[in-house]
Amino acid sequence: MHFKHLTTVLFVVLLVGIPSNAQKKSFTVNQDRLEKRIFDLADFGIQENGETERVAFSDADIAAREWVIQTMKDLDLTVTVDVAGNIIGKREGSHASKKPISFGSHIDRVPHGGNYDGCVGSMAALEVMEVLKENNIKTKHPLEVIIFPNEEGGVMGSRAMSGNLSKAAFDVVNSTGFSMGEGIMRLGGDTTRITEAIRKKGSMAAFLELHIEQGGVLEKEGLNIGVVEGIVGLKWWDVTFTGFANHAGTTPMNARQDALLAAAKFIIAVNEVTNSFEGAQVGTVGRIKAEPGAPNVIPGKVVASLEIRDLSSEVIENVFQAIKAKAKEISTNSGVAIEFHPLDTTADPALTDLGIQKEIENSTKNLGLTFKYMPSGAGHDAQDMARIAPTGMIFVPSKGGISHSPKEFTSAQDIANGANVLLNTILVLDKKLD
Amino acid sequence: MHFKHLTTVLFVVLLVGIPSNAQKKSFTVNQDRLEKRIFDLADFGIQENGETERVAFSDADIAAREWVIQTMKDLDLTVTVDVAGNIIGKREGSHASKKPISFGSHIDRVPHGGNYDGCVGSMAALEVMEVLKENNIKTKHPLEVIIFPNEEGGVMGSRAMSGNLSKAAFDVVNSTGFSMGEGIMRLGGDTTRITEAIRKKGSMAAFLELHIEQGGVLEKEGLNIGVVEGIVGLKWWDVTFTGFANHAGTTPMNARQDALLAAAKFIIAVNEVTNSFEGAQVGTVGRIKAEPGAPNVIPGKVVASLEIRDLSSEVIENVFQAIKAKAKEISTNSGVAIEFHPLDTTADPALTDLGIQKEIENSTKNLGLTFKYMPSGAGHDAQDMARIAPTGMIFVPSKGGISHSPKEFTSAQDIANGANVLLNTILVLDKKLD
Repeated sequence: MHFKHLTTVLFVVLLVGIPSNAQKKSFTVNQDRLEKRIFDLADFGIQENGETERVAFSDADIAAREWVIQTMKDLDLTVTVDVAGNIIGKREGSHASKKPISFGSHIDRVPHGGNYDGCVGSMAALEVMEVLKENNIKTKHPLEVIIFPNEEGGVMGSRAMSGNLSKAAFDVVNSTGFSMGEGIMRLGGDTTRITEAIRKKGSMAAFLELHIEQGGVLEKEGLNIGVVEGIVGLKWWDVTFTGFANHAGTTPMNARQDALLAAAKFIIAVNEVTNSFEGAQVGTVGRIKAEPGAPNVIPGKVVASLEIRDLSSEVIENVFQAIKAKAKEISTNSGVAIEFHPLDTTADPALTDLGIQKEIENSTKNLGLTFKYMPSGAGHDAQDMARIAPTGMIFVPSKGGISHSPKEFTSAQDIANGANVLLNTILVLDKKLD
Repeated sequence: MHFKHLTTVLFVVLLVGIPSNAQKKSFTVNQDRLEKRIFDLADFGIQENGETERVAFSDADIAAREWVIQTMKDLDLTVTVDVAGNIIGKREGSHASKKPISFGSHIDRVPHGGNYDGCVGSMAALEVMEVLKENNIKTKHPLEVIIFPNEEGGVMGSRAMSGNLSKAAFDVVNSTGFSMGEGIMRLGGDTTRITEAIRKKGSMAAFLELHIEQGGVLEKEGLNIGVVEGIVGLKWWDVTFTGFANHAGTTPMNARQDALLAAAKFIIAVNEVTNSFEGAQVGTVGRIKAEPGAPNVIPGKVVASLEIRDLSSEVIENVFQAIKAKAKEISTNSGVAIEFHPLDTTADPALTDLGIQKEIENSTKNLGLTFKYMPSGAGHDAQDMARIAPTGMIFVPSKGGISHSPKEFTSAQDIANGANVLLNTILVLDKKLD
């Protein structure tokens, strides 16, 4: 692994060292500086056990945001915090009339999360700005680093920016004990003026986000970069199984209406049906509750969750209909009623821009890195930004596919690879976009 | 139904009216009086909604016990309460040297329980004593009605009487907030002298218990009486499934170690394996917990309960081994580790006495009632009494097989049938037993 990385680095240096012309020159980020900034960020909220807790709206979150703002200022960016708490660090371009090219991610974390989710993209965005500053590169477009607040609690900042943050969401309380409404005020925003955060569709030239994959595909296939085709949509249902609770000792096997047995058949059907379709769709039962829930009582009622994700809303619907048909079969055979209750956590798929995908691929190739096109199975700020701007997203490998865990890890080399792709894609887009 | 019952009553009257000889004379209970007593008992702990709550050690339980004691005294029984709180109402026999024939049940209830579980057998026992009193029948053996305390919280009274109540059980707190130790003191018992409640093996001529079936077999088959072959033994396990929790969006279907999917296969296997054996054994998964338990996270860990019951310990073991083999197969195919942790709630099967079974059958036939031999799938005081005395148990139908519920119901006619079988079996045993 070390030797392989060394080769890559040498190859990149080679590319940088002998540019065939000015357009093809590849700039590279400072890997050590980028890694240090990720570690510095992890200090905000660090616990005695060495792990960091930094849920949105916490004191640690607020302190980290102040540090980010100061870092932006040190990089000569003009910093504003919008009414939703989005931190925006702007670098003027040479053509005042051009729309900005924006890029960024988030620094808030899930409880008991890791140091890379969101932080990699955020610190890489700052590193891009530093490389441009130290090389005195003036882009035509203004550039913006956006650090979105409370991504983990409902992509709050990007939702507000795309005009999709509902006021009902203000009441949602996270693990800090603050509601989203209170949280926005804590971050220097203003819930009474929340619509002022909206950026009109077409007002940005492009939006880019670098992020860890949060899955194990790149690592498994030994690839450096994921060119994200889009962020999958998802639908959730509560599925209720109604049988008849009865004494497990006195009710013969053939006289039972066992809701859990029907639910078990359903869980297997979800797996089989999802696998029976071509493509990368996923179907999951993650939550289950059996009532009354005693070892000596046949469960009379079970409520389980169903989640289906795919890049295509049509595929989600087709998988759901096939699962529903199978559920009907299970219900008929078991005498257990099965009902589906859609939950309002639906997210539509968000496709990234085909032209930007191509430029990410080209930048990756120019840097001598390997890649694959892939969907993002997780939600991201880029999902909402795609509603208002041509959007691109870059993935770097997650060790073991682990995320939302202190065990989350991406190597400094992999992070630098991603940051280099981000940097060079921005420079190419600056040249090519209107 | 009404016409059918009328026919039965006429037939019984016929039998009573024309006895071919003294031995064959059938006495019958007073159905209305018995029904009234069941309703009177249900008044202790009655709530505004018309349902009764009378968990052991509650004020309602204590008041009901005082009423039972007074009723026993009114029937000229000599009443004692032993150190475990067992209420014993004794009627002397003509042969002072004979061991007692004992019979009874319990009057405590599960929370949100019904009016028949335990109460039917308890009130029928008092009715038997009343019929004997009003007919001036003197038995050779002393007769004892035993009302066992806290059956629902661990067959406390009968366990103490058979010498199987562990001191560890004293710490168990029920829904009244009292521990079993405190409860025994409240009932007039004495935990410091608990071993004085022990009745030596062989010190009773017989023990009989009438009880509702708590299952739907008798009703389904249109039968009056269940001749109980024994109380099934049971074993409990916690079964732990260890996979790997991961993001449901970013982890492809083929890269999952889904603990809930493995558990679903296990639940189906428990059902299929249990059904694959000849006999009346039952296997149940009643409790399940998936972690972390979110719709968007693949469950990494599941803990489910497994319960197996049968009249034969060997069958329980064979079913368990077959389930275990199937679990190994599921584990190998899924990459999810499956472990079994036995819980200390094991109860050995308790067989009833073959001679007493036969006398219950004969009494049933003499009364013109229909019957079947069957196991008791639920635990009863008779289970512990079977360790120290030749024991018989009589079932009457439970409507819809429902028990441990306010919806529990057994008709007055069905109850009277059972009480008549109890009465006549006692009279036959009195003649036949030493």
